[in-house]
Amino acid sequence: MKIAILGFGVVGSGAYEILTHYGYEVKRVLDIRQHEGLENILTSNFDDILNDKEISVVCEAIGGLEPAHTFVVKALKAGKHVVSSNKHLICTYYDELHKLAIENGVTIKFTSSAGGGIPWLYNLKRGVRCDEITKIMGIMNGTTNFILDAMISDSRDFDDVLKEAQALGYAEANPSADIDGLDTARKTAISSSIAFDTIIKEENVSVFGLRNIKKADIDYIKANLNKTVRYLGFGIKNGDTVAAFVEPTILGYDQLEANVYKNFNMITLFGEGVGRLSFYGQGAGKYPTGNSLAQDVIDIIKGDTKLVYPSKEAKVDNSAASRKYYVRTSASVPCDIIDSAESIDGINYIITKKMGVDSIHGYAKDIFANDSGAFFAGIEE
Amino acid sequence: MKIAILGFGVVGSGAYEILTHYGYEVKRVLDIRQHEGLENILTSNFDDILNDKEISVVCEAIGGLEPAHTFVVKALKAGKHVVSSNKHLICTYYDELHKLAIENGVTIKFTSSAGGGIPWLYNLKRGVRCDEITKIMGIMNGTTNFILDAMISDSRDFDDVLKEAQALGYAEANPSADIDGLDTARKTAISSSIAFDTIIKEENVSVFGLRNIKKADIDYIKANLNKTVRYLGFGIKNGDTVAAFVEPTILGYDQLEANVYKNFNMITLFGEGVGRLSFYGQGAGKYPTGNSLAQDVIDIIKGDTKLVYPSKEAKVDNSAASRKYYVRTSASVPCDIIDSAESIDGINYIITKKMGVDSIHGYAKDIFANDSGAFFAGIEE
Repeated sequence: MKIAILGFGVVGSGAYEILTHYGYEVKRVLDIRQHEGLENILTSNFDDILNDKEISVVCEAIGGLEPAHTFVVKALKAGKHVVSSNKHLICTYYDELHKLAIENGVTIKFTSSAGGGIPWLYNLKRGVRCDEITKIMGIMNGTTNFILDAMISDSRDFDDVLKEAQALGYAEANPSADIDGLDTARKTAISSSIAFDTIIKEENVSVFGLRNIKKADIDYIKANLNKTVRYLGFGIKNGDTVAAFVEPTILGYDQLEANVYKNFNMITLFGEGVGRLSFYGQGAGKYPTGNSLAQDVIDIIKGDTKLVYPSKEAKVDNSAASRKYYVRTSASVPCDIIDSAESIDGINYIITKKMGVDSIHGYAKDIFANDSGAFFAGIEE
Repeated sequence: MKIAILGFGVVGSGAYEILTHYGYEVKRVLDIRQHEGLENILTSNFDDILNDKEISVVCEAIGGLEPAHTFVVKALKAGKHVVSSNKHLICTYYDELHKLAIENGVTIKFTSSAGGGIPWLYNLKRGVRCDEITKIMGIMNGTTNFILDAMISDSRDFDDVLKEAQALGYAEANPSADIDGLDTARKTAISSSIAFDTIIKEENVSVFGLRNIKKADIDYIKANLNKTVRYLGFGIKNGDTVAAFVEPTILGYDQLEANVYKNFNMITLFGEGVGRLSFYGQGAGKYPTGNSLAQDVIDIIKGDTKLVYPSKEAKVDNSAASRKYYVRTSASVPCDIIDSAESIDGINYIITKKMGVDSIHGYAKDIFANDSGAFFAGIEE
């Protein structure tokens, strides 16, 4: 079985180095740039890969929707297995890509699309074979964890740390996907789809961003609750429905997640049989994510190519999951949801009653309309 | 493919329930006791399983060396795949069982022999396919973690907590395998064998037990070092050699292991490519360990049956790994290894210089000869 890698950026080149070092043959690399040493296998024409009968595994590391989507669809239709690290692609076309792969007798694997170097999705998929998963949760975005850790450890403010993260290359020039939660929402959607054998879309996931957090929030939460903050995605099963949301989350210092620093990730499943199972490691990077991509390729080469279409229809209902919330805003908050509140220099610091996730996200719309800088965080018990 | 389960205790019955619930056929259960509802498949005669051509996977959950060893050897020779949760068996006969399986064209899997419900050995084995593992370490024994957590959280002394653990069924009437480190040493040996593609035996692992720890040690370490204690096994690669040891280990409060409570386990690999990867979960119990056993069986049924004999000869050398040590003893300690020391009520509390693991275990023999209650703990940097 010969391999083609689409995209020779950070992740694609990492997977290339690992696969070739361990004796797997990468016959073609698709990239529009020139790369020294790759002259014999480099092409900028996808047809060179599509029409090559020797290539049976296509490893997509381009990122984004196009041209990745077009290439992956063509590869599947041509009867080639696909491995992808592209969470945007997988999340958007989960349904179509699974159907196409099954129709064409091939598989699609995407372990590296959530958790980077952590074999999270791989083990989650293995876990559902003989267990009922009731909940998944985790720190799935290294950039926001880096920002939070720096704010907390060094007592700095958000904008200052974000600039440093951008200078270090941890955050993009446009950091929205990270700090507004889209990246974590996509990973939560993919993880929930596997965990609950259904298809959860990114628009099904309710999101509070991290963008509005201030040093004042971290100080207030520490002083008044003796807790800290991390940015987590959640998928929770409730009978036939699934609650899926991404929120800054307030945790005790003795929680494992509260001890995840720098750009590391930690993702957890709760199984009825196996109990809590957590996975910790590098959520991004050339060799960690390249490793996950390479592992998926090796699994295919070793014969693990059976793919099953999700059996259940997704019913997302965020009313079944509930928690207390911390809200910091200059806007007014309805009295009936307030458990305790104080006002400091015209800013309201509020702890809500325990309330449904759907409910607080509903109230938040009104509050944001009056205070676009309001900050919301769920309190994990 | 039909399955036989040997031993219907906690783990065997857990695996049975999981496998049958998910549609896998357990044709025979071997046990000398009667079990209601199992009348049609129960036998006390192993030949009923050995001679049954329909049974191709034998799942050993008896524990101990005999008769487990005899049964497993016979099963492998009869061309049946073997799954085992038995760390004593796997550690003692690693070499023989691997050779026998390969000779007979079958596999032997033992994920549940270290880490219980955590797919640790499974992922470690997957990890070495395309990475160089440089170190493994972990909390691998739930009983000692339960004892340490209770001592630290509730400020109690060892004997008191051990009695509670025995009453709760967490510790055996004879707790030596747990508190003297043999259980962790075996899991460290098996993990190191996989990580470094060699065969490490339990007698190669240097061990400091947990038996001698006192509340006074925990208090001293907290007051003077601002750190806490967990019981860890380590396997560290140094060129062509491996250092393997089990020691009470002093950790900062922000270390992940320091936040592992109750009887949970956390085990970690360090890969050159993937970086640090940690796995956390239940290290024992009917359904967690039963889950790991069932997963191994399912892997075999799905066709994952290739087994490779370790390629390297083990050279254990504990001189290459080094750390500082905390020593509490009424005996005298050679001045040249002491970094700092104080004497309280005739007891010496010592922090050593950074020294080789082999070296401190050598000195410890002399110190134990004069003070059988001395306590040693490595300090993790």
